[in-house]
Amino acid sequence: MKITTVKGTNDYLPREVAIRDYLQSVILRTYQSYGFERIMTPIIEDIENLDKSEGGENLNLIFKVLKRGDKLQKAIDSGDEKELADMGLRYDLTLPLTRYYANNRAKLVSPFKVIQMDKVYRAERPQKGRLREFVQCDIDIIGTKSSNAEVELINTTANALMNIGINNFRIKINDRRLLKSILLKAGFENEQLDSVCISFDKLDKIGAEGVKEELLSKEFGEDAIDNLMKVLEDAPFTLDKAKAYVGEDESIESLESIMSAVESISGGKYTVVYDMKLVRGQGYYTGTIFEVESPDFRGAIAGGGRYDNLIGKFINEDVPAVGFSIGFERIYGILLESDFKIPNQKKKIAVIYDADDIASALKIADSYREEYDVALYERIKKVGKLIDKLENAGFDGFYLCNQSEELKMFDE
Amino acid sequence: MKITTVKGTNDYLPREVAIRDYLQSVILRTYQSYGFERIMTPIIEDIENLDKSEGGENLNLIFKVLKRGDKLQKAIDSGDEKELADMGLRYDLTLPLTRYYANNRAKLVSPFKVIQMDKVYRAERPQKGRLREFVQCDIDIIGTKSSNAEVELINTTANALMNIGINNFRIKINDRRLLKSILLKAGFENEQLDSVCISFDKLDKIGAEGVKEELLSKEFGEDAIDNLMKVLEDAPFTLDKAKAYVGEDESIESLESIMSAVESISGGKYTVVYDMKLVRGQGYYTGTIFEVESPDFRGAIAGGGRYDNLIGKFINEDVPAVGFSIGFERIYGILLESDFKIPNQKKKIAVIYDADDIASALKIADSYREEYDVALYERIKKVGKLIDKLENAGFDGFYLCNQSEELKMFDE
Repeated sequence: MKITTVKGTNDYLPREVAIRDYLQSVILRTYQSYGFERIMTPIIEDIENLDKSEGGENLNLIFKVLKRGDKLQKAIDSGDEKELADMGLRYDLTLPLTRYYANNRAKLVSPFKVIQMDKVYRAERPQKGRLREFVQCDIDIIGTKSSNAEVELINTTANALMNIGINNFRIKINDRRLLKSILLKAGFENEQLDSVCISFDKLDKIGAEGVKEELLSKEFGEDAIDNLMKVLEDAPFTLDKAKAYVGEDESIESLESIMSAVESISGGKYTVVYDMKLVRGQGYYTGTIFEVESPDFRGAIAGGGRYDNLIGKFINEDVPAVGFSIGFERIYGILLESDFKIPNQKKKIAVIYDADDIASALKIADSYREEYDVALYERIKKVGKLIDKLENAGFDGFYLCNQSEELKMFDE
Repeated sequence: MKITTVKGTNDYLPREVAIRDYLQSVILRTYQSYGFERIMTPIIEDIENLDKSEGGENLNLIFKVLKRGDKLQKAIDSGDEKELADMGLRYDLTLPLTRYYANNRAKLVSPFKVIQMDKVYRAERPQKGRLREFVQCDIDIIGTKSSNAEVELINTTANALMNIGINNFRIKINDRRLLKSILLKAGFENEQLDSVCISFDKLDKIGAEGVKEELLSKEFGEDAIDNLMKVLEDAPFTLDKAKAYVGEDESIESLESIMSAVESISGGKYTVVYDMKLVRGQGYYTGTIFEVESPDFRGAIAGGGRYDNLIGKFINEDVPAVGFSIGFERIYGILLESDFKIPNQKKKIAVIYDADDIASALKIADSYREEYDVALYERIKKVGKLIDKLENAGFDGFYLCNQSEELKMFDE
């Protein structure tokens, strides 16, 4: 039998789980405090729902669950590889959420303010060092077109980050509609926009020159490409410049009202800036998009946007929706490396007892349980060695039955 | 697209998740308070580990994950159905725990007192009404043969049950070794014992007559069967009677010391009784087995036992281990039906505001956030309707911006 985990997944040690649980509980409590409610959906979803979703590249990363019994035999006999699986592991929490909303909307308050914190799965190539099982922490507001929903999500996410000790960050914001208006104004054609966005999204990785080359290789108009490059050179490309470039636009009004509300409530603790270079990968975004970046972390630590057409795929009406997701694993990874100490953690002591009298030991343990977490350990011959091991393992003190009969704290 | 969950799995509504989270947090805090530490393992395990484990009937209920890319094509070409999957979803938390211990034992304190609370998967036939995705709450002690480990597990589990409000229960206890001694004394042969246990385990379902018939149909000795029936008629078959029947036995001493310690620490709040009829299904138990039953619940609400040989399958040494698992889904199901109210839950209010001034609304909301969870809702024309909906959805009060400018609680 193999003692390691399957590649791309982790066993978590007690100290690691304590940090993960702490982070999740702070994020969850913040979300709840801002009026969001937690739901849960299954990890396994119907394979057709997953396949037909707008997950972009993630669709190639679905773990598929083999059919069982007669159905499996039939699938094998059919010779059609696609028949082999009837379910898959979810690759994000947005697809399950849209299905959930369609399934349960009669029982939900509208707009629905919802929390999801749970595991998702992607069949990444293990050598990339990417996780195949990881946690996402999402909040979404479903059922309103109002850009106040964006303000609430930004406010809530910013407070969650500050509550876990991340204070140095800024929020970049853009609107897919404005980005498209700018690209149209530059001279690209409507049916080219998705492809232009895919190249443009690589700006951070390959630079303006790289984007230019890629767009040229796609044989888009050279004038349009030159115009786009001029916009990029005109840094910082403010919202006022955008307005001058494309004229009045619903998306500019929306961005202005979001930014002014956030500025008013942030109390200067964080800033929100318009970034015409922000694209975000997912195909399903229809309006506002945002990302949180911090000099203490490489890449984004949170991101999200508006997806007004997704739920309509399940029911015969368009339901507007917008979401914001915290990059839980990134934050956890940085905190773990930085020797993070969980604040206000209950102290832990050991009661060391003689094997023939556990009942007395448990009573002693009970007497300390209000103040401490208390673990029992049978006395061994070299009790000093056991005590050293406990101190190394993070215990704060010990009580030696039938000997000192008092609690000794290691830091005294 | 299908809006329902895959069969045998659930979407959980906010009220349901709140109860599930509450139950899990109380159980987890109790476990931690008694000195156990939480670990986490992946939901996906290597398919060979799962297939070779001693999961009994559960081995037929493994969801298998399809291979990907070239490996999948190779598997299809091989024509061997068993080649199609390389991983599976875990069917319990014990197999992953034994692998985890083998993988990480150098970093763990011994004995290792461990908590697992997580999801497991079984490909049950949906029509049975059984869940295919459900939560297990386990504690285990790994690395000691001492029956004090059993005492700790019983004490901790009993306190977890009492902390979630279950006060009327008793613990049945037996030892696989004693059960086997009794069966040998009755006249069965060593190699018949596993098969006899399988029939004997059905006593609750088919009665003594049914067991007798099944044993006869298996063509075991009639004398042995008659002797076993006499033991069953000699109710209550106490530990003293067991001692008289098989003579002094290590397992009797162990049961006596566990029962006397538990009696001393339970303070009369619950009892522990020897039950020679307790078998428990799993093939891997080697010693003590136990179950919790309550007149308020049908069937067992917790169960466990000693499995000293499982970890040895991963490493070249036998590591003793014993575990106790709370039947989370049963308890949750009963509480949900009984209109359970979460104790000391933070109250929740709504701030209803005009769409054009969310910044002021968020500041008002912030001023109440210490005392309440606060959700924002945009004012609609028929605001009375919105307020009714919020009350029905479980809100405790509301604040109407630009109108009454005060917090009104529904119960005032």
